Amino acid sequence: MTTDTSDPTPVSNETIRTQLAHRTIRAFTDEPVSEDIITTLLEVARHSATTAFQQQFTIIRITDPDLRAEIGAVSTQPHVKSTAGELFIFVLDLHRNAQIREQAGADLAPLSRMNAYVHAHDDTLIAAQNMVVAAESLGLGTVYLGSINADPRRMIRALGLPKYTYPIVGLIVGHAAQTPQCKPRLPLSVTTGVNAYPELVDPAAQLEDYDREVQEYYGTRDTNTRVDSFTHIIANNLGKGVAEQSPMLEVMHEQGLALQ
Amino acid sequence: MTTDTSDPTPVSNETIRTQLAHRTIRAFTDEPVSEDIITTLLEVARHSATTAFQQQFTIIRITDPDLRAEIGAVSTQPHVKSTAGELFIFVLDLHRNAQIREQAGADLAPLSRMNAYVHAHDDTLIAAQNMVVAAESLGLGTVYLGSINADPRRMIRALGLPKYTYPIVGLIVGHAAQTPQCKPRLPLSVTTGVNAYPELVDPAAQLEDYDREVQEYYGTRDTNTRVDSFTHIIANNLGKGVAEQSPMLEVMHEQGLALQ
Repeated sequence: MTTDTSDPTPVSNETIRTQLAHRTIRAFTDEPVSEDIITTLLEVARHSATTAFQQQFTIIRITDPDLRAEIGAVSTQPHVKSTAGELFIFVLDLHRNAQIREQAGADLAPLSRMNAYVHAHDDTLIAAQNMVVAAESLGLGTVYLGSINADPRRMIRALGLPKYTYPIVGLIVGHAAQTPQCKPRLPLSVTTGVNAYPELVDPAAQLEDYDREVQEYYGTRDTNTRVDSFTHIIANNLGKGVAEQSPMLEVMHEQGLALQ
Repeated sequence: MTTDTSDPTPVSNETIRTQLAHRTIRAFTDEPVSEDIITTLLEVARHSATTAFQQQFTIIRITDPDLRAEIGAVSTQPHVKSTAGELFIFVLDLHRNAQIREQAGADLAPLSRMNAYVHAHDDTLIAAQNMVVAAESLGLGTVYLGSINADPRRMIRALGLPKYTYPIVGLIVGHAAQTPQCKPRLPLSVTTGVNAYPELVDPAAQLEDYDREVQEYYGTRDTNTRVDSFTHIIANNLGKGVAEQSPMLEVMHEQGLALQ
């Protein structure tokens, strides 16, 4: 533990410095991620915290170029269509436990509850973020892919996913071919409360400084320069992405999830 | 990066060693977590990856003993009822962006979609797990609290949570007053697939070795010794916890979430 004044936080160490330096990488070199690193990342994910010891996630590693192209077609993002970097799909998985219960003669009704869905979602993202931190600690770049939700039925078909599973998020890990700036985040005064929800009275006024900071970031970044503010993005773009308009709930119901 | 043969993974460093050593801590000393550390943990959470830059989570720090007692009453777990350790509630938060959209005259319909819910859930757990890794890297212990879902309406009232929010998970961070063993996890052969879902043919047979490992863990651990296997826990306990039977979906709908 150090309290070096060059650190942006009062307390710091290698892990925390890595976490604070997080930025999304959307271009990777062709240098492969070694099998030793892949095994290590999967081991880190495996050792994650899990709700009530239920271990309700599965990771699918994509090595088949045709399957990668299919997932790229769903996502439409260039870094998914590219073959650079290692692609993992994090699957929210109640199927394994459904099989265990079926074999033991226990009923499957609890698996279709929102409660089970939420706990499996927790498990899946805890594992994914654990992998992200490990990858970044090894100097690798990462990008989460919410975009695989643009066509969940096609993803389910492509991966052969059974009932009680859902492909919640993708992740590419690789050697970065770009060094983007850190994107400024909402200040703690806005995103944290003490003993109560930190209700904003006048968002436009209270986010004015932050909006300016985001505009400066967009204006000065190396690629895809534009002028945009946080409140403008939220007012104009939220809900318009393909992954935000797909029939996600319908597909979850088809999968037997989040029904009651 | 080291490849020391004493490491359990082929590649390792301080961060990864910390992650592999993860275990849940359920008893904390009265030594407070310093304000410097708390600020640092919140900064790490703030710098987490976020879906489409929407930053849809809020953290509420609990310092009021009465509020802690109320949350302890919901959770029923002794480590929540205790005042030891620092308690944070991670709130899935679409309310802030609803306010921004309302002020800008944009419609609120997208916030009630499952898609928005899922992306906010992702954001919230990514931030929570980032905080867990940072805390553990500083030698602190952590425990996730899915148990706050035992009575979501009471949690929402206690924290003054507005529409479009949901208290998804709690987290206690503190100085450990116990040194539990690591709990064995499902093997990678079961939880990871390559290019397809790793379907089990005969779970009982394929999980026999793992069941034995879990039985040994329960038989030899320091506290709360019992004999139980993974498949037995899944067949007998899954769905029976109070947080697994609460009206979670109903309450989310009351909050305007996950409606379509």
